[in-house]
Amino acid sequence: MKVAIDAMGGDNAPEAIVKGAMKATEQFPDIEITLIGNEEKIKPYLTKHDNISIIHTEEVILGEDEPVRAVRRKKTASMVLMAKEVEEGRAQACISAGNTGALMAAGLFVVGRIPGIDRPALAPTLPTIDGKGFLLLDVGANADAKPEHLLQNAYMGSIYSEKVRGIKNPRVGLLNIGTEDKKGNELTRQAFLLLKEANLNFVGNVEARDLLSGVCDVAVTDGFTGNMVLKTIEGTALSMFKMLKASLMSSVKSKLAAAVLKPDLKGLQKKLDYSEYGGACLLGLKAPVVKAHGSSDEQAVFHAIRQAREMVMNHVPEKMEEAILKNN
Amino acid sequence: MKVAIDAMGGDNAPEAIVKGAMKATEQFPDIEITLIGNEEKIKPYLTKHDNISIIHTEEVILGEDEPVRAVRRKKTASMVLMAKEVEEGRAQACISAGNTGALMAAGLFVVGRIPGIDRPALAPTLPTIDGKGFLLLDVGANADAKPEHLLQNAYMGSIYSEKVRGIKNPRVGLLNIGTEDKKGNELTRQAFLLLKEANLNFVGNVEARDLLSGVCDVAVTDGFTGNMVLKTIEGTALSMFKMLKASLMSSVKSKLAAAVLKPDLKGLQKKLDYSEYGGACLLGLKAPVVKAHGSSDEQAVFHAIRQAREMVMNHVPEKMEEAILKNN
Repeated sequence: MKVAIDAMGGDNAPEAIVKGAMKATEQFPDIEITLIGNEEKIKPYLTKHDNISIIHTEEVILGEDEPVRAVRRKKTASMVLMAKEVEEGRAQACISAGNTGALMAAGLFVVGRIPGIDRPALAPTLPTIDGKGFLLLDVGANADAKPEHLLQNAYMGSIYSEKVRGIKNPRVGLLNIGTEDKKGNELTRQAFLLLKEANLNFVGNVEARDLLSGVCDVAVTDGFTGNMVLKTIEGTALSMFKMLKASLMSSVKSKLAAAVLKPDLKGLQKKLDYSEYGGACLLGLKAPVVKAHGSSDEQAVFHAIRQAREMVMNHVPEKMEEAILKNN
Repeated sequence: MKVAIDAMGGDNAPEAIVKGAMKATEQFPDIEITLIGNEEKIKPYLTKHDNISIIHTEEVILGEDEPVRAVRRKKTASMVLMAKEVEEGRAQACISAGNTGALMAAGLFVVGRIPGIDRPALAPTLPTIDGKGFLLLDVGANADAKPEHLLQNAYMGSIYSEKVRGIKNPRVGLLNIGTEDKKGNELTRQAFLLLKEANLNFVGNVEARDLLSGVCDVAVTDGFTGNMVLKTIEGTALSMFKMLKASLMSSVKSKLAAAVLKPDLKGLQKKLDYSEYGGACLLGLKAPVVKAHGSSDEQAVFHAIRQAREMVMNHVPEKMEEAILKNN
């Protein structure tokens, strides 16, 4: 199987990308990787060449670029050429740690949607207390969703969780502002009715405060709300660590105790770091497109490649197409 | 000034309510309190009677009651009689720690809206790292908001922050999924245009991840999103404390260090506990209606009374009416 990777995307590119790619080809003999980006910048890190090739380009989409315009105008950008590899059948999946909006645009315009899916959804796996994690979708690909989009998100999330995360009969919850059946806004009240009739293990409305306790395996929502929840979790965790740190540094006694606890605190921080669960998948496209976190290190890039590989091996896009065809 | 209080609402009623009321009348000689509820249950705690009277009733709205129906049918419930005291001019403000939805219904149907305000908004003050806090509104009174509702929320939040929280020229932010001007869904993109033209210190779009860092004094949003963000903050903080506790109890060494740090951790928990900032105000009603947290203790009830008193003293509903009239 061939995977195309944008070597220039993310804070640690190209070093982390190249090292993650080498780790993946070492671990998975069935994988071939095409790195797309500036050859001169890639080569210093590429110490093992087995199953790795380079497509050279100097154009790059930047973090501050307006996504849709960038994809349309920067026709030889590493991210666009990456998506072209998939579109033209030379790769079965692609990965970038670059501009999220641009990757969504490249996915939509270049890789293309699965027939029957109206809007792709961006789906990260977030941490839970028990370490199992849950899939949240959509977190921003589609800010103005209709009830039927949430139903499609539910099917896509369920299939992804089963095939890639190995969860049997995943519990699908509708993210809402109360657990009672009739709670919510217009969108969730209508989506609830669709989900209740769907061929899914629908567990009803779930509240944001129960997500990290693992109340469901797949939390379905619109892109605006999902993005808000994702960023609130990040912001709260970060703020708490800051406050904890300030508090622990406030006296000699607490400094000493904090030193003892450092590994525990590091462990907690790691547990909450969702890049450990791999990248966020852009579901609903003809081929796996994985968004690795912007701050991805070698290990996170490796996990994103593993994830893309499992999606290809388990025919995730094809299964989604089948499910949507059967249930539309 | 007279304040009516539902003595039967909340987990610690009537004890915490009665004790909080006594504390308030002691501290504020200008206040008279009417406690509404079961006289037999109130009396054992009422050791000081100065400026406190009781209206006896046995009917109560429960947490599991359907809000609108309960307010309509339970005509002698403590919460309904409380709102009636305000409606009929015998009290200038009211407070309950009971069923939030029912309090919103009682506020809307019994106390009544300020002319020009389409939808009241529930507005808690949430913690920030620097301890100053920020006002979030709406968190659930109005799940399907229109752009003009967000504009009204902005005016109400700004006036409340200035008059009650003592913040000069409060920074009003629009909660959104990106800070760029054109980001968001249909609702926020339209609200942005209204807010930009408004007579407010509008600081633009703010992201959920920056709220606890104090990026604005007033975060404006619709009731669905606000409720989601509120519960995500709660859920994330709670989950982190659980994980931290489990981690600290994992070895003898960390247990010892944790014991040393206990006061620091308690302090952090307290800092994140938003009941410290008083209750959530239901803004947009003809008189101050304060929702104390369900788990309110004596101190939280006292703070809610202090808050209601400041709203009355500073003519907050009147100022809101003026601002809406002038800017509509």
